[in-house]
Amino acid sequence: METTVKTMLRDGAALTDSALERLLPGPETLPHSIHRAMRHSVFAGGKRLRPILCIEAARLAAAIHPHTKFEPEAAAELGAALEMLHTYSLIHDDLPALDDDVLRRGQPTCHVVFGEATAILAGDALQTFAFQTIGNLRCPATTTVAILKEVAAAVGTGVGRVGDIYTGLAPGMIGGQVMDIEGEGHKPTATLVEAIHRAKTGALIAVSITAGGLFGAGDSHSASASTIARLRSFGEKAGLAFQIVDDVLDMTQDSAQLGKTAGKDTATDKATWPAVYGIEQSIADAKELIADAFAELAPFGPAAEGLKAIAQYLVERTN
Amino acid sequence: METTVKTMLRDGAALTDSALERLLPGPETLPHSIHRAMRHSVFAGGKRLRPILCIEAARLAAAIHPHTKFEPEAAAELGAALEMLHTYSLIHDDLPALDDDVLRRGQPTCHVVFGEATAILAGDALQTFAFQTIGNLRCPATTTVAILKEVAAAVGTGVGRVGDIYTGLAPGMIGGQVMDIEGEGHKPTATLVEAIHRAKTGALIAVSITAGGLFGAGDSHSASASTIARLRSFGEKAGLAFQIVDDVLDMTQDSAQLGKTAGKDTATDKATWPAVYGIEQSIADAKELIADAFAELAPFGPAAEGLKAIAQYLVERTN
Repeated sequence: METTVKTMLRDGAALTDSALERLLPGPETLPHSIHRAMRHSVFAGGKRLRPILCIEAARLAAAIHPHTKFEPEAAAELGAALEMLHTYSLIHDDLPALDDDVLRRGQPTCHVVFGEATAILAGDALQTFAFQTIGNLRCPATTTVAILKEVAAAVGTGVGRVGDIYTGLAPGMIGGQVMDIEGEGHKPTATLVEAIHRAKTGALIAVSITAGGLFGAGDSHSASASTIARLRSFGEKAGLAFQIVDDVLDMTQDSAQLGKTAGKDTATDKATWPAVYGIEQSIADAKELIADAFAELAPFGPAAEGLKAIAQYLVERTN
Repeated sequence: METTVKTMLRDGAALTDSALERLLPGPETLPHSIHRAMRHSVFAGGKRLRPILCIEAARLAAAIHPHTKFEPEAAAELGAALEMLHTYSLIHDDLPALDDDVLRRGQPTCHVVFGEATAILAGDALQTFAFQTIGNLRCPATTTVAILKEVAAAVGTGVGRVGDIYTGLAPGMIGGQVMDIEGEGHKPTATLVEAIHRAKTGALIAVSITAGGLFGAGDSHSASASTIARLRSFGEKAGLAFQIVDDVLDMTQDSAQLGKTAGKDTATDKATWPAVYGIEQSIADAKELIADAFAELAPFGPAAEGLKAIAQYLVERTN
């Protein structure tokens, strides 16, 4: 089983890298500086978690909608768009005006290598390329529009309507970053930590799974609302569990193991799960969330094995 | 005639403001700081040039495609998305790491009022909201996807493919900003100045007109390639003329008239048209470009009067 998951992760990452390589301008494309800055951060050794979840969700949705054909390379393009959004948020989060971080994935951060101005614009451009990539997805236009609405809502300030399937207030990535900044210097509360996690990292992880599901189903109208709702709920729970594990690793691992500056969360009194609940309870909470997430996938039977195996692996990881 | 243009500009701006007010989260929406920062810059007295051009292009396209109905409020939502993109680029351009400007449209810039971190995120969020707004446009999904591709290509680094209608290298807004930064401190050449202007401001102005045309035609497949090609060419020429006039005004007007720091281009040896050609030649070039732009619209007859009047007004403006 362990080997199967590792193979799946490796294959998903390779598919994603190949899509990113194909979609992003090369380092010799003018103007050089920004394309090199974008590639520096995109190809800095990320785990490709969001694309892998996206691809597996697309595979699941295609499997339960028998009239659709699953094309991994096409799904990986949506995954690449999600990875571009993730990378843009990291580049901006690392800037001196925000987290002021010099190390990310074991590499010097974008602004350290290319300067602040180029790093700001490289982040901007990765967001733009992500939406351009969504515009060029190989799927029906109605599916593209459904994915566009979902993704834009998930990476915004968190007040947008979410697609055709669900209307209401939903967490958004930028909103999570703002709450994180506003909360600094205050003792973190349970409510605030959960809101930040659900928005700052949870929303993009959850939308990787719902957007993958919409893509895999081939036509947004044939994807039943209940399938997408189950994928969303799975994604929200798995995303929160992932972030809790991240918080725990930040407190228990050193910088070399993590590839980024360890202990930074404690040092700046950041809102983290262990800061509220302690390390043991945090680990228990992550496991419980994953069990709840798995329950959402039960009706899909064996088609959900891939997504479940990856989620399991993510909460048991050590970096 | 003068009165007609001013009425058109005022009505277009009012439609845009109303769409922006409807689409953007209110100042009391949590988290407060970012929504207030976004609104500070969006409602700082911009002329709404891009939305007005978009609405008039949509009106033109609807007029020459008799089966489509022109709905100004719906077109203004696309205009609002373009204004969000314009505002995001200004917020980031004004940051200390880029132009370090403290005054814009007669108001203190976003980072001066809300701090750098919030200004960076407010710019990010305006880009996201722009694409979310495109996702929610009231038009067929195929039209939305065509508009998405056009707009994303125009505000990117300038290497993307442009929609279904035209494939090739096209200038992009972020690419223009990068060229502008890279060119600083060097004596500007004619080739560089034109490339920067076509990319940094020209691409978004041109796409305001092509996207408006696609929207007004109601269905991207019924908008003939030649209509969109003519609108694109008009937009590229009018956009370049607009920027040349902007350069001239920067050298000949004081800060109070402009509502921003005048003479800044000269002070920092920036790439401007008058720096290469002098003021008189610049004014002549702008007029010639507008005449060429008008020629593109000739086949549309009276339907093009609105777009032409606005373009004429823009090169004769004094602020």
